[in-house]
Formats: sequence, structure tokens, C-alpha cells
Amino acid sequence: MALDLSASSIDLTRQLCDIESVSGNEKRIADEIEQALEGMPHLDVLREGDLVVARTHLGHERRVVIAGHIDTVPVNGNLPTRIETEDGIDYLWGRGTVDMKPGVAVALKLAAELTAPSVDVTWLFYDHEEVTSDLNGLARLARTRPELLEGDFAILGEPSNGAVEGGCNGTMRFDVVTRGKRAHSARGWMGENAIHKAEPVLALLAAFEPDTIEVDGLAYREQLNAVLVSGGVAGNVIPDECVIHINYRFAPSRSADEAEAAMRALFEPLGEFVLRDLSPGARPGLDDPLAQEFLAAVGLAAKPKYGWTDVARFSALGTPAVNFGPGDPSLAHADDERVPLAQITACEDALRAWLS
Amino acid sequence: MALDLSASSIDLTRQLCDIESVSGNEKRIADEIEQALEGMPHLDVLREGDLVVARTHLGHERRVVIAGHIDTVPVNGNLPTRIETEDGIDYLWGRGTVDMKPGVAVALKLAAELTAPSVDVTWLFYDHEEVTSDLNGLARLARTRPELLEGDFAILGEPSNGAVEGGCNGTMRFDVVTRGKRAHSARGWMGENAIHKAEPVLALLAAFEPDTIEVDGLAYREQLNAVLVSGGVAGNVIPDECVIHINYRFAPSRSADEAEAAMRALFEPLGEFVLRDLSPGARPGLDDPLAQEFLAAVGLAAKPKYGWTDVARFSALGTPAVNFGPGDPSLAHADDERVPLAQITACEDALRAWLS
Repeated sequence: MALDLSASSIDLTRQLCDIESVSGNEKRIADEIEQALEGMPHLDVLREGDLVVARTHLGHERRVVIAGHIDTVPVNGNLPTRIETEDGIDYLWGRGTVDMKPGVAVALKLAAELTAPSVDVTWLFYDHEEVTSDLNGLARLARTRPELLEGDFAILGEPSNGAVEGGCNGTMRFDVVTRGKRAHSARGWMGENAIHKAEPVLALLAAFEPDTIEVDGLAYREQLNAVLVSGGVAGNVIPDECVIHINYRFAPSRSADEAEAAMRALFEPLGEFVLRDLSPGARPGLDDPLAQEFLAAVGLAAKPKYGWTDVARFSALGTPAVNFGPGDPSLAHADDERVPLAQITACEDALRAWLS
Repeated sequence: MALDLSASSIDLTRQLCDIESVSGNEKRIADEIEQALEGMPHLDVLREGDLVVARTHLGHERRVVIAGHIDTVPVNGNLPTRIETEDGIDYLWGRGTVDMKPGVAVALKLAAELTAPSVDVTWLFYDHEEVTSDLNGLARLARTRPELLEGDFAILGEPSNGAVEGGCNGTMRFDVVTRGKRAHSARGWMGENAIHKAEPVLALLAAFEPDTIEVDGLAYREQLNAVLVSGGVAGNVIPDECVIHINYRFAPSRSADEAEAAMRALFEPLGEFVLRDLSPGARPGLDDPLAQEFLAAVGLAAKPKYGWTDVARFSALGTPAVNFGPGDPSLAHADDERVPLAQITACEDALRAWLS
């Protein structure tokens, strides 16, 4: 059954959620989106893998990119969607109802409806956001067709509880490895216990007070956490290695190099430091005129975004970008993922008002 | 090729090592031992699974059990055996050359040779020592035919560097589990980090000074070590659980209940305490007259045994027991497992002198 873009954005969210599209399985939903948009005279539609781009060509001076990913994390018995009322509020329940089918639905509906928006718009529906960065559809497009990402301002429909969340924290993952010497645990004095040597690492983490840093008027709360720990060989062997995997979320005012240097200074005295992953944050860029107009039009003050999102990819291209979408981000990926219906309509209305 | 029990104990060790007999695969070596002993008029030979018992029936007042396991840990490219000279000392290299084919070889040779020992002897060759306790051949015999284990004194040919090692420490394994609350690591303040909560557990372990306790004249050195640690869900999730697996080696003067109570008192304030495994130690029992005679005959002072061995099973049956065998126990299970040839002969000579 083809997508019905004339339906309400709530109904369209539900249509999109009920097309299972776990990362790697986006072909069908991309086909449906492409078919629904192609042939519309105000749009140039282009397919690249399972990514669909639809662009207006009105000759406006300014172009806005409005993007959303069409994949989800794995379904866990939470499809098809259902509507439930909780404390008098109607919710759509199910995988993707927060992250981020409603943002996609709002974009898709407005892409079809707004034949003459006040700025040129690049509508972007992309694949593989919920998996490793090297598969990410937006990153792929930035490598292969960067001109398609060009714009003066970008809005990512990631869940932000209907608020405007600017920029994002950077994220860095690294291992601190403590080493010892194996021995039979009956004669422990012949070895050196690597797990015991991890104690100062955990002590530092437990006592650490992360900063809150103001960037372009928004307060970014940093975080430093051990997220994984493993060590040991067997129940009767003194362990010769313990690995503490640490995640540092840092304000967008710090560069990647600065973040790395700060962590090395803290942890290198305690063990071997192995950098695993490092993505700089994105400054909110809210001093940009288009961003200011957008905030005025939607009538909301901006908040900082804590989680890393693809706004950082736009930021890296020099395009100011914000997150603006229905759904509580803390319910993303959760088994009880659900979105208040009213948030979907509110986002649709705000975006339509600004673009009209 | 059948075993040649008239060969030297060194050569017999080599014959036994070259029959691969990793736990679970003892059938062939048990067959060879059974065939080599059966038909000897001074021995009653009995087969139970892959365990072989050979008993003299001379009507002596006293009976000694001399036991050894015939299985090994997995081979790691270290078979067949080879002889190498290192710093002027000749070694037999290979899996089982320490743990514990030379002890088995000495017993097997003397079982055949000593047709009229000064005490009655129960020679015991058993399976499945290197795996979980419920498979252990000696434990099985204690359940099914306990009368075959009866004796006034027991010698286990486990590697003790040719010394007499009395009794053994007890061993206990338990988990200390710290718990928290999951949250996305971008918003860590919404969760509670279970790995950070493990810090006081590691601090206690790192600072702990284990006791050394004298039991029947031997000093038993205790040990307390984290041997395994694991915690965490994913690189972007605040961990809700961390498990520290701890091994406590305790002197044989402490009962199992006392050891457990001591550990609960230390760790229950810090996390959930889950007992995994608890085996009491064995007092050396060296005040027993047979033990005294044995020590006098071999001309060695006894030392404490730190590792848990099957001597504790004899101790539990009320039979004083010691470890006495060739090989450095710290090379047991090692890839460079090797035994000085001279130690094999020395053990053989000492045992023969005592039993003659």
C-alpha cells in the first residue's frame, strides 16, 4: 500500500512506523518515500542507495536542509504501532515513534504540501543512522555528493520533545588498560593483580565532577562515565589485564584535540590509554539570522542538545544546525518508546508557519 | 604399544605423557594402566569408569592410599614430550610432565615392583581431576565405593617440587554485584553508574593484607583477589550492573562457615554477595604417626600446600594426607611445563625406601 501524504502527520507517522525499517533494511521505506514524492513538479527527486533527496528550485537566495533518518534500532515486540491514552494524553506507541518517524512524517508531509516555501528547501531522508558512522547515509552523501548537502541552515528532525535543541556535545570513547602479571590465585604473591590496579581509575571517575559550559548562550552539561569494564582469565588466575571503557561527553566549545588532551592528562598516569572513537560536538550556531528567524517563528527558546547527533556533520560543513522534532529523546530505543500525538501536530504547525 | 613398567620412572613418565589424556579422554591411558597391572598376583585390580584401583592384600595393620590423576589440561602444541638441557639440568618438556604424569609414573612403577611393601597399599589412578568437581573420579569413588578410599594415611602425587606439602588452603569464590540504573550516557545524571560503585570493592581488595596462619606447625599464607570483573551494556549506556568475582584462599584452620562469614562481613556492605563455590582446606595432619614415619623416611621437612588439591577429599574422610610429587607446581598448566629428570628419580627412591 502506497504512502498517503495527504493524511495527517499523526497518521503518516503511523504508516511510516508500520513499515519495519531496522538499519540495513531501509529499501522498502525508501522506495515508498521516493514513489510518493517523484513526479511532483516543485521537487527534484534523487535516489542514492536508500537515501532520498527532494529539492525545491525556486531560485530563493537561501536554502534550508531539513533532514531525518528513516532507519530504527531493532524492533522488540513493539510493532505494529498502537494508540493508547495515559493520564488523559494520547500516545502513539511502538518502535520508531520517537526516533524518528514523526520527524520524517512531518518533513514528508510538508515536502509534498509546500509547493512554494519562503526559502528553497532540501528535504533529506537517509539510511543507516543507528549503526556505525561509516555506514551513515548522511556521511556517505557528504563524501560522494557534498553539493546536495549545501544550505544556509539545517534542521534535523531528531526527537527534542518539540523544543529546539541547538548544537550537540562531542563524544569520545577510550579504554584505560591496567596490566599485571598472571599467576595461580593460590600463590597470588607471584603475580600482580590488574583488576586491583583499576581501583584508582574508578576512584577518579566516581569523584569526577563534570563541567557545565556555556556555549553561544546555551549551557552544555558534560559527562564522564565508565560504560564497560572487563578483566580476568579464569577463577583461579591472577588477572593480567583489566580494560575500563570510558565515555566522555564534552561541550562543543572544546575541540576534539582539547578533549583528548584533557582525558590523556587524567588517565595516562593510571594505565595505558587507547582512543577508540572521537566525534567533536557542534556549536549551536544560534546567532545565525536564519536560526534566529526560525526560533522566532516557532516561538521557542533554544536548549542545548546533550546527545551527539548528525547536526555535528552539518556543523563540520559550516552549516548551522538544530534538532527539532517530536518525542522525548530519553524514550528513544526504549521498549516503551511512544510519542504524544499533540507533539507531532505542534512540530508540523511550527515548521509550516516558518516555511510559509 | 603397551606400557613398560620395568622401564625407569623417567621413561615411564614419558610413555604416559605421550598418551594424550586431556580430561574426558582418559579411556586409553586407563586401559593401558589396567592392562599393565592386572594379573599381578600381589594386586587386586578394579576398574570403575576410567579410574583404576590396585590394592595389596597382605594383612598389614595399616593401609596407605597413594593416588594420582591421569588426566591433563588441554595440550597446547607441547606434545610429544622432548628432553632438553637448560643450565646443565635435564628436563622432560611437555603437557603433563608436571601435572602429574611423573607422580603417576612413580606410583605405577612401585605398584608393580613392590610385591611385599611394609604397609598395605591402595594404588589409585583416577580421571577428571582438571575439570569441575562433580566429574572428579576420586569424588565419584567416595560416593559410590567409599570403602576403596579407606586408609590410615594418603599421599597424592601432585607436583610439590619433590617436597612434602601438607594439607591445603581452602578456596572460596563469590561475586560482589553492584547495581545502578541504566540511562543514555549523554544524560548520565538520569542513571546511576554501577561500575563507579565497584570502586570501594576494589579499594578494599587492593588494601587488604591477608593473614598467614600457622596450622599444625605449618604457616598457611592466605590470599584474597578479584579474579574476574565485568560490567556494562554498551558504549553509550550508563551501566546498571557490575560483577566482581573474587577468590579467597583461606587457611585450613578456618571452617568453610567461618570463611564465608568473614567474607560476607567485608563485602555485604558494598554490594550483593553471591556465593559461587566453597571448598574447605585440609589440615596437614602431620602429627599422625604414619605421617611422621613418612617424613623421617624421605628425610624432608614438610611445607604448607597453598593450592587446593584432592588431599582435602581425604581430609574430609578423616584420613591425613600430603602432597608429594615431582615438578614445580607453578609450571602446572603452563605452556613451558617441564620437570627436572632428577626430581622424578628422587621421588621414586624416597617412596620406595619408605615402603620397603
